[in-house]
Amino acid sequence: MSGGIGAIERRQMIAAVGAIGLCLSARRAFAQTDPLPSWNEGAVKEAIVDFVTNVATSGGPDFVSPDQRVATFDNDGTLWSEQPVYFQVAFALDRVRAMAPHRPDWKNKEPFRSVLAGDKAALAKLGQKGLLQIVEETHSGMTVEQFRETVLEWLATARHPRFNRPYTELVYQPMLEFLAYLRTNGFKTFIVSGGGIEFMRPWVGKVYGIPPDQVVGSSGATEFRMMAGGKADLVKLAKVEFIDDGPGKPVAINRFIGQRPILSFGNSDGDQQMLEWTAAGAGARLNGLVHHTDAKREWAYDRQASFGRLDKAWDEAMRRGWLVVDMKRDWKVIYPFEER
Amino acid sequence: MSGGIGAIERRQMIAAVGAIGLCLSARRAFAQTDPLPSWNEGAVKEAIVDFVTNVATSGGPDFVSPDQRVATFDNDGTLWSEQPVYFQVAFALDRVRAMAPHRPDWKNKEPFRSVLAGDKAALAKLGQKGLLQIVEETHSGMTVEQFRETVLEWLATARHPRFNRPYTELVYQPMLEFLAYLRTNGFKTFIVSGGGIEFMRPWVGKVYGIPPDQVVGSSGATEFRMMAGGKADLVKLAKVEFIDDGPGKPVAINRFIGQRPILSFGNSDGDQQMLEWTAAGAGARLNGLVHHTDAKREWAYDRQASFGRLDKAWDEAMRRGWLVVDMKRDWKVIYPFEER
Repeated sequence: MSGGIGAIERRQMIAAVGAIGLCLSARRAFAQTDPLPSWNEGAVKEAIVDFVTNVATSGGPDFVSPDQRVATFDNDGTLWSEQPVYFQVAFALDRVRAMAPHRPDWKNKEPFRSVLAGDKAALAKLGQKGLLQIVEETHSGMTVEQFRETVLEWLATARHPRFNRPYTELVYQPMLEFLAYLRTNGFKTFIVSGGGIEFMRPWVGKVYGIPPDQVVGSSGATEFRMMAGGKADLVKLAKVEFIDDGPGKPVAINRFIGQRPILSFGNSDGDQQMLEWTAAGAGARLNGLVHHTDAKREWAYDRQASFGRLDKAWDEAMRRGWLVVDMKRDWKVIYPFEER
Repeated sequence: MSGGIGAIERRQMIAAVGAIGLCLSARRAFAQTDPLPSWNEGAVKEAIVDFVTNVATSGGPDFVSPDQRVATFDNDGTLWSEQPVYFQVAFALDRVRAMAPHRPDWKNKEPFRSVLAGDKAALAKLGQKGLLQIVEETHSGMTVEQFRETVLEWLATARHPRFNRPYTELVYQPMLEFLAYLRTNGFKTFIVSGGGIEFMRPWVGKVYGIPPDQVVGSSGATEFRMMAGGKADLVKLAKVEFIDDGPGKPVAINRFIGQRPILSFGNSDGDQQMLEWTAAGAGARLNGLVHHTDAKREWAYDRQASFGRLDKAWDEAMRRGWLVVDMKRDWKVIYPFEER
């Protein structure tokens, strides 16, 4: 992994697991069914189980009352894959192609011309500005409920280019178990993603068990309108109003959730401030990064990635002793379909 | 009640109850403990109980799956009182007085000068602009957790001028029962208020049983900062970023909750669009307005009120057959302390 994170830093990370203030010697009192069967035994799994056990143990030194058990998770690269491009980008590009017959102006208008011409060199250089323009034009001009239907139709038919499966099958089995384990122990689990809030809400209930009101994300503006027949509706405008990334994540957690989490997981630099804010609260905390180390079963990338770059947040994790999940080492399976 | 809503319109309203599509003849199958003991028997109570029973009856024509049972409530004037001024305004004015020793500039700066001088004529003419300025300056310059403590300290010591009781005792007992009744029947109950989201969250859990992430409201901007000692925090800025009122309410419900409610209650013109959006969804719906008709036990006001004006929304309720709760007629008690 050229320019990647080396073996020495990995050892530092493993050592750091011991420094996160968890009582690793505290064993569960009773043998139970393993709540995390897709996680290999080791320091990472142990740290997770010990943290959850400790905050849920009434009378224990790390006990946290259930109303404070707030857990926040990034989505792209933390709960599902994000390569070769964020899945919402794949959706937006498909929407450009689907909408093109109704938008003759796009033929001579960048970045739409490049998308329609399949100009890969131009597409690779779109940058955030070009992507936002595509998202704004493809995610607007309809009611919020029409957009929801569009997302569900796309998910039902689109296939991931590498795995030839619906995108919603490319979720991480170990993280599904982690989410369920937290909820069993009284946690409220939230998504806090740079992805679009209205792109995620239609499917995260079924896939992650997370209801729409527990999804925080980037959003476009909507407008209240009284439609024909006196029926009120909300229409999506071609204007991104909030980017839920970097320092925007703790700001959005405060705005939407209204509490500082006690557990946060992410996988890239965009998650750093969320983890920093989580870490700075009083009492037991668990912060973690998913490190993509498995090119064979998933992907391997970090400091040099175009999507999901893990660079500054890695250094911060080392400094602060955050947990690092090494996909290759820590996960028995990546995707649910591997278990079949 | 000069300029108020007369007896003819009240009769129209009572007649309209029959037109809201509820099966009023459907009786509960079994005699049970009354879930709404502070509500007088009559068409309003019957409409509420029938609606909740119908949407929760599996296999019935109006059944709604639990994940769709979203109920939204305005706060000021719907769940607690809002006279002689919104309680958050009382808080903000008290904060001006408390902060004045550290803000010598306020002595000669409006609207702060009028507040500090107790100039009632000037205060009555503050308007939204003056109020927002006071809110911005008194609700900023501290971390979100410091602001939370300030709100809790004020609630512990401030007393309502008419009742000489903590403001949080001026909540409506019948609405507390209504909220609990909905939750018992699988509803998620949300507050959607023009009031400040960070002013409500510190106390609504204890008082209404509503967790912080189920509160939607107006908000000020916050900024992520790395403080001394490497601790991340969020600081409140002197800038209102969103006013959750009128057409802003359905926009905010979509942004925060991500679902169209099936039940909404409000009491003023600022709630009209929330109720219109709720009403326009498919399937069983219940929309209601609390009408302040009891000058003896609470207050009586509608079309002419400075705080909580009910004018256009009343006309809309008549047109659309929304439920109108007449405080004097429908509520046995107003406040919890009356029961002692």
